[in-house]
Amino acid sequence: MAVYSETLDTRWADNDIYGHVNNVAYYAFFDSVINRYLIANGMNIHTDDIIAFMVASQCRYLKAVAYPEKVRIDLSVAKLGNSSVTYGLALFNQTGDLAAEASMTHVFVERASSRPTPIPDHLRTALARLTA
Amino acid sequence: MAVYSETLDTRWADNDIYGHVNNVAYYAFFDSVINRYLIANGMNIHTDDIIAFMVASQCRYLKAVAYPEKVRIDLSVAKLGNSSVTYGLALFNQTGDLAAEASMTHVFVERASSRPTPIPDHLRTALARLTA
Amino acid sequence: MAVYSETLDTRWADNDIYGHVNNVAYYAFFDSVINRYLIANGMNIHTDDIIAFMVASQCRYLKAVAYPEKVRIDLSVAKLGNSSVTYGLALFNQTGDLAAEASMTHVFVERASSRPTPIPDHLRTALARLTA
Amino acid sequence: MAVYSETLDTRWADNDIYGHVNNVAYYAFFDSVINRYLIANGMNIHTDDIIAFMVASQCRYLKAVAYPEKVRIDLSVAKLGNSSVTYGLALFNQTGDLAAEASMTHVFVERASSRPTPIPDHLRTALARLTA
Repeated sequence: MAVYSETLDTRWADNDIYGHVNNVAYYAFFDSVINRYLIANGMNIHTDDIIAFMVASQCRYLKAVAYPEKVRIDLSVAKLGNSSVTYGLALFNQTGDLAAEASMTHVFVERASSRPTPIPDHLRTALARLTA
Repeated sequence: MAVYSETLDTRWADNDIYGHVNNVAYYAFFDSVINRYLIANGMNIHTDDIIAFMVASQCRYLKAVAYPEKVRIDLSVAKLGNSSVTYGLALFNQTGDLAAEASMTHVFVERASSRPTPIPDHLRTALARLTA
Repeated sequence: MAVYSETLDTRWADNDIYGHVNNVAYYAFFDSVINRYLIANGMNIHTDDIIAFMVASQCRYLKAVAYPEKVRIDLSVAKLGNSSVTYGLALFNQTGDLAAEASMTHVFVERASSRPTPIPDHLRTALARLTA
Repeated sequence: MAVYSETLDTRWADNDIYGHVNNVAYYAFFDSVINRYLIANGMNIHTDDIIAFMVASQCRYLKAVAYPEKVRIDLSVAKLGNSSVTYGLALFNQTGDLAAEASMTHVFVERASSRPTPIPDHLRTALARLTA
């Protein structure tokens, strides 16, 4: 499966009282990688008439990660629909172990009405490259 | 089903560029309510030898929520195992509509070794009150 | 001095590895209270042509605060200029002790151009109520 | 002046409703760079008997920054005391413009008692390298 990879910083504030990156922060990593891929492929989050809303997300946490580690995220596309796309995400800790697996689903909508609309062609082409 | 309810503030920083509470923040709400319930029932996150790690989480987003709304979270227990518990969570917006449904799973572990261990009795009793 | 007070939740993720609310989170509290006051007095963050940018902030941390405490924030206006306002903020822990003192400065700007512009009258009136 | 530089990711959630990195997030960047420098020079945030609390922070915001930009932080030491250190921080946007200037003050304390204590020698040596 084709994947898009990014290495991200963890932040001091990501660590919780138990000394690990809080489970919530993982979604912030995923969100950032997904949108960075879309932006790199022509999405303008400031001005586009069509934007993407997250409608579902899930994650399984396999190993602890802790600041100041850097983490690698692999992004793929599990399902590419007409107006929605389900991403597959894998998070690797600094030593390269799989630390979390996740999926998130975007629905593309008109910014003005919030109504679902087909994925724009240039983004569909980019997303199709990340399918198996 | 018995539920524990809390009303939480949203924060300015929760709103993303599209003017809605970011999908990530929902998990911060859920996490806070779950642990507040455990703390109110005797868990000491600073000193207890047994702590709880999140091993799975998922959420479906049904309606947008936006700062400065307050949100209500209903917490229940969907599955109470020997060392793990799966929570059911519902988030209601300020007008009372169901805006998100989620589940999260805690595994109780020894703080020193991170190894799974049975849920302490006083917490099990408290969690059992939230099962159907 | 007239003040506007709000009691806010802390969140699980606010606690850092040392078991205290991270210094960063205080600004999230302050930001939220300031904007909530402006919104309550007629600012529409989604549609107004004039918005407010933070241009300076500072905080002194006097006592530790920890989730799951609730905190009270007192907001006042230290200096009300033509296009800018400097807020005074005090944060009290759950037992009522002063835990932090801060100030933050908003400059009002045209949303389209980001250029400074006089504070709209209805907001000026509301802010003037919080001066000494 | 000797400086320690790091380039950090911004995250989707850092952008606020006005499309810029929220003023709060800057402190999360600064905090992360400061502690990463200390950790790289021998501080163990999980086990050290002496830890560092933030007692003051301030920032002036000069230019807007927006996800998905990467930002560079330059860290220097403005004042090195017996048990406290005041850092100077400069944040540069992706095109290299100075976007924010800040200072933050750490007091070193005994983890057990929270009482101020001299900065450990190995960290003092590292911090002294960043003074003018």
